[in-house]
Amino acid sequence: MNTFKFSFKNDYSELAHPNVLKALSALGNTQFEGYGLDEYSLRSGELIKAKINKSSADVHLISGGTQANLVVISSVLRPHEAVIACESGHIFVHEAGAIEATGHKICTVKGADGKLSAGDIEKVLNTHTDEHMVKPRLVFISQSTEIGSVYKKEELTAISEFCRKSNLYLYLDGARFGAGINSDSCDLTYSDIANLVDVFYIGGTKNGALFGEAIVICRDELKPDFRYFLKQKGALIAKGAAIGTQFEALFENCLYDELAKHANNMALKLANGIKTLGYGFLSEPETNQIFPIFPSETVKELHNLYGFYDWQQIGDMTAVRLVTSWATPESIVDEFLFDLSGT
Amino acid sequence: MNTFKFSFKNDYSELAHPNVLKALSALGNTQFEGYGLDEYSLRSGELIKAKINKSSADVHLISGGTQANLVVISSVLRPHEAVIACESGHIFVHEAGAIEATGHKICTVKGADGKLSAGDIEKVLNTHTDEHMVKPRLVFISQSTEIGSVYKKEELTAISEFCRKSNLYLYLDGARFGAGINSDSCDLTYSDIANLVDVFYIGGTKNGALFGEAIVICRDELKPDFRYFLKQKGALIAKGAAIGTQFEALFENCLYDELAKHANNMALKLANGIKTLGYGFLSEPETNQIFPIFPSETVKELHNLYGFYDWQQIGDMTAVRLVTSWATPESIVDEFLFDLSGT
Amino acid sequence: MNTFKFSFKNDYSELAHPNVLKALSALGNTQFEGYGLDEYSLRSGELIKAKINKSSADVHLISGGTQANLVVISSVLRPHEAVIACESGHIFVHEAGAIEATGHKICTVKGADGKLSAGDIEKVLNTHTDEHMVKPRLVFISQSTEIGSVYKKEELTAISEFCRKSNLYLYLDGARFGAGINSDSCDLTYSDIANLVDVFYIGGTKNGALFGEAIVICRDELKPDFRYFLKQKGALIAKGAAIGTQFEALFENCLYDELAKHANNMALKLANGIKTLGYGFLSEPETNQIFPIFPSETVKELHNLYGFYDWQQIGDMTAVRLVTSWATPESIVDEFLFDLSGT
Amino acid sequence: MNTFKFSFKNDYSELAHPNVLKALSALGNTQFEGYGLDEYSLRSGELIKAKINKSSADVHLISGGTQANLVVISSVLRPHEAVIACESGHIFVHEAGAIEATGHKICTVKGADGKLSAGDIEKVLNTHTDEHMVKPRLVFISQSTEIGSVYKKEELTAISEFCRKSNLYLYLDGARFGAGINSDSCDLTYSDIANLVDVFYIGGTKNGALFGEAIVICRDELKPDFRYFLKQKGALIAKGAAIGTQFEALFENCLYDELAKHANNMALKLANGIKTLGYGFLSEPETNQIFPIFPSETVKELHNLYGFYDWQQIGDMTAVRLVTSWATPESIVDEFLFDLSGT
Repeated sequence: MNTFKFSFKNDYSELAHPNVLKALSALGNTQFEGYGLDEYSLRSGELIKAKINKSSADVHLISGGTQANLVVISSVLRPHEAVIACESGHIFVHEAGAIEATGHKICTVKGADGKLSAGDIEKVLNTHTDEHMVKPRLVFISQSTEIGSVYKKEELTAISEFCRKSNLYLYLDGARFGAGINSDSCDLTYSDIANLVDVFYIGGTKNGALFGEAIVICRDELKPDFRYFLKQKGALIAKGAAIGTQFEALFENCLYDELAKHANNMALKLANGIKTLGYGFLSEPETNQIFPIFPSETVKELHNLYGFYDWQQIGDMTAVRLVTSWATPESIVDEFLFDLSGT
Repeated sequence: MNTFKFSFKNDYSELAHPNVLKALSALGNTQFEGYGLDEYSLRSGELIKAKINKSSADVHLISGGTQANLVVISSVLRPHEAVIACESGHIFVHEAGAIEATGHKICTVKGADGKLSAGDIEKVLNTHTDEHMVKPRLVFISQSTEIGSVYKKEELTAISEFCRKSNLYLYLDGARFGAGINSDSCDLTYSDIANLVDVFYIGGTKNGALFGEAIVICRDELKPDFRYFLKQKGALIAKGAAIGTQFEALFENCLYDELAKHANNMALKLANGIKTLGYGFLSEPETNQIFPIFPSETVKELHNLYGFYDWQQIGDMTAVRLVTSWATPESIVDEFLFDLSGT
Repeated sequence: MNTFKFSFKNDYSELAHPNVLKALSALGNTQFEGYGLDEYSLRSGELIKAKINKSSADVHLISGGTQANLVVISSVLRPHEAVIACESGHIFVHEAGAIEATGHKICTVKGADGKLSAGDIEKVLNTHTDEHMVKPRLVFISQSTEIGSVYKKEELTAISEFCRKSNLYLYLDGARFGAGINSDSCDLTYSDIANLVDVFYIGGTKNGALFGEAIVICRDELKPDFRYFLKQKGALIAKGAAIGTQFEALFENCLYDELAKHANNMALKLANGIKTLGYGFLSEPETNQIFPIFPSETVKELHNLYGFYDWQQIGDMTAVRLVTSWATPESIVDEFLFDLSGT
Repeated sequence: MNTFKFSFKNDYSELAHPNVLKALSALGNTQFEGYGLDEYSLRSGELIKAKINKSSADVHLISGGTQANLVVISSVLRPHEAVIACESGHIFVHEAGAIEATGHKICTVKGADGKLSAGDIEKVLNTHTDEHMVKPRLVFISQSTEIGSVYKKEELTAISEFCRKSNLYLYLDGARFGAGINSDSCDLTYSDIANLVDVFYIGGTKNGALFGEAIVICRDELKPDFRYFLKQKGALIAKGAAIGTQFEALFENCLYDELAKHANNMALKLANGIKTLGYGFLSEPETNQIFPIFPSETVKELHNLYGFYDWQQIGDMTAVRLVTSWATPESIVDEFLFDLSGT
């Protein structure tokens, strides 16, 4: 598409892992039930429930992350209720007002390192005290976050406990769930997350699937009628089997984790090489998104060779975002480091 | 999935035509731009514009029909404006209130044979005269319709002319566009439709694609900012190339029309066989959905052998819906007729 | 304003009963709490709860009927849930899509004489069976209805029982509550209504108040956070005392019932006079809205003398709507009958 | 109501100026057209258009400020468009998510002294550059602001010019329009405001009316169909004459300005007295809301005598909000100062 060597713009630049495409092709002309009631969807749901060790969960497969966020959030909240999120939260910045379009305000706090704390949430509650203001009811977090950081078990537990005692639901956006849970910095298991949050989704699109996200509902009162919400928002896909078979391929043999580990490893190698060359980072690299800071002149040169986004201007330096994926070849990482060393 | 021989339940029971899957696999690990800005999406847009002979049109690829309807309709209307549709319209009956959820009322008329007429539309205008009522602004029709019928050129022209003189937009839901345009009963060309309506979509999901619908905007004032609407409703898919390459496969060599013709032919053969056996129909078969009327006892027996939906009870007879697709084998049609003759 | 003798157009053509205006003036420069937390609002709430004999009810005062409908309905329903109403229901016809603008579909049935029956409601439930359709959850009725008829105790009891066993809420629009409950055809008491419906409102605007409607919530689970809904829809009026003092005036000494009885009596006298002159009616006169059928020529002459709306053309006859109010002088009724006899 | 001497909590604690009540009573049983089409509404509209010297403007009377904001904003914006406002803006903080409930995001900037600048607005535009974010389209300001400050002519002109060259609409919330325009700090005329903003409202509720706000639309393309928006949001009041006659009373003889001046003067006297006693202010007193800073101990004592809101804790000091109105007696101001001097 472009003339540069490789794109580190994002982790959805390549179509899908070969095993996923193979699974799709294997369906041939088999007939299946529509709207996610097929055997592939059901089996992938079972695989996911086994993985998170929670047989009581409900699993719903849909096609994209913004869709997951808007369906889940609008299904949980009554009209006067609001979401609490970080200022860097995807729903607040990069979803074209999708949540507000369903009628709900997002109450933001600055957060630190892309993450909320129980204290942040409490501050929002303390300033929303009567009917002239919205009523915060749902906490939105991302794992890994929009800037590549991860919640540790202690942090997520503190948030979860605070939410439960404060009558708040906790929702985790897992667009990059794989990168998060497979990060060396992350001491949370699949099961931990299923126990600590009320609803979350496991992102396929950014980790080897052609498309698809698996919404997992852990809290009983959020389960009824969820398929109505999917349908109403245009998220109940006719050929649900097309997502089901992909999640089967991803969760049958830990492919999902392997792909995420590869992406993380490539980012780590990239980060270490960059550190060795003497550059610093906007935040400590933890997953497949890293934010090195280069002289702006260097950034300009790199743009001739690689695709990536500039993130923040800092004097005459520029922090950039480099994203690796399940498909990033190690050779390209080496090449980038070599090219960088020559700038 | 089920133990019966074959399902005539719908035209999205099989995954995708082999050429479509081949096109997907051919992408390999090529990197592409996100969100529909890739070369595959662009090329498929060009193919579609050539097909409809309107280079000025805008084409947007999304993943499903309800999504297409809710995005288009909510992008066109201001808050007080409403849609006019048939009582049998998909948006009125089978989208879980998706249109109302975007804030808009659907004003229905009974219609005839699943179709609106200019006179029907006029009646709605005549009863919506001041600010105590909604203001009808968009007319919704389907081709082929929800009950398998098709608008003829004369009918669509009359509607189009009435809409233009009445300051109404005209939107055509083409979930089964292929079946409609390739029906022997249809004297409309792709180009006719692009000239007569303001916005429409060409459905891929029900005609050989894995998933995907191509929204085509013909009217200039409906074009600006459309990608915002897609994003806000969760319809801007990250890997747009995954739809783009499918529509390329479908429109490069008239595969789209061939598949629809096959489906229509299978339905026609089925219909003729059923007629020969002496049965009548709820409405004249024109596309890949047919509605024969059998004795309820016969229907019961057929349910042991085939999947299909009962449509309407008529005394001790039952009208059923049989749907064929691009993948329906002719041998199954023969078998169904044979089984029917033995009931 | 107009040059005709008198307007029978509606029951909100005159400002307010003198006692109401006196109550307002009596407040002088007294300071009161804002947003309905004042003593006047509280006292009027107590008067209403005594009147309906339900001390557990919640009473909220707001400024108009469409507002009452949209606030109540959107507070009760989750996004995928819908209202069941008559085709003649005010929310369906004459509120400019206010309910749909809050995201909810109205499922209509034809009804009879402006009224729903349990059987009508059941029919809607039977055709809304899965997540491709909205989920009916609230039944909307009006007392008196939009065409002046009234539900009898037997009818309302049957609806109430059906709703309770079917997990449906029952909401009564009381824009003309006074005319309904004080109709000779109505065998329901205030207390009956409070026991049979889940939420309703008692209309002030059309029965002597300057403006104001009293929403009464009987069902416990509909009470929490209601003031948030009021505020969010712009219905939490800063000077709630202005409505409170009016409802005090109306309910202290049965003024509310007296005014409604006067309106009904004037309508009855008008109807009897019209009958005596040999004319028929579109529906049997029961409250302060009557629908006589005159030769169109007569209607034309009457329009020179009186304000009223034409309702329906029936061959060369025209059914018209005549509305009386608490302020309609008996002399004008006599004059109208005299003028009619001379046409 | 309370046992304290006087409430400085807000400017809607007293019902209405005697002239306003007199005007209401004067209507007697006169019949008028419904829904704001009466002669009183029309005449008050003419008075307002004369006052702002813009005969082409459209004037609509409604019952409250939150309602005005939500109707205007949702009428102006398409679904993907957003509002720019100060973090202290009423719509962002104190309207229970009313704007988001109509589907729109509010993009906030910190502002200074409760006011936006052209530079603030530009910053928002610069960070909203593609369809992954909302599209800012309307700027919301208040005059006087939520913290009592006023825009000067130079400031408003700069904002207006920036908006016009940037394709942004400019909306002014005039809940306290009277206090703003009659402030000694304000060099703007009624006519200036009508020329610089696209739509605004003149608040009655907080300046002598029983209730009522006059929305004034100056920009032509915002005028069509506005009554539909009013109706759909429950803001088209049946007895519009009840607001019309009040605005007639307020604008016939400059009563509106006189009342605002009285409120401002009382606040000024209070402020000057407080300064004389040696206390400072959170912001310079300019209108009828002032924010003196007292020792928290003093505040505690004052709460025994007067009603008012604590605003902000500053170490062991507390900034409080004191609001005067058209009805605040000068003697009470003296008494407050006397009591304060004794603490």
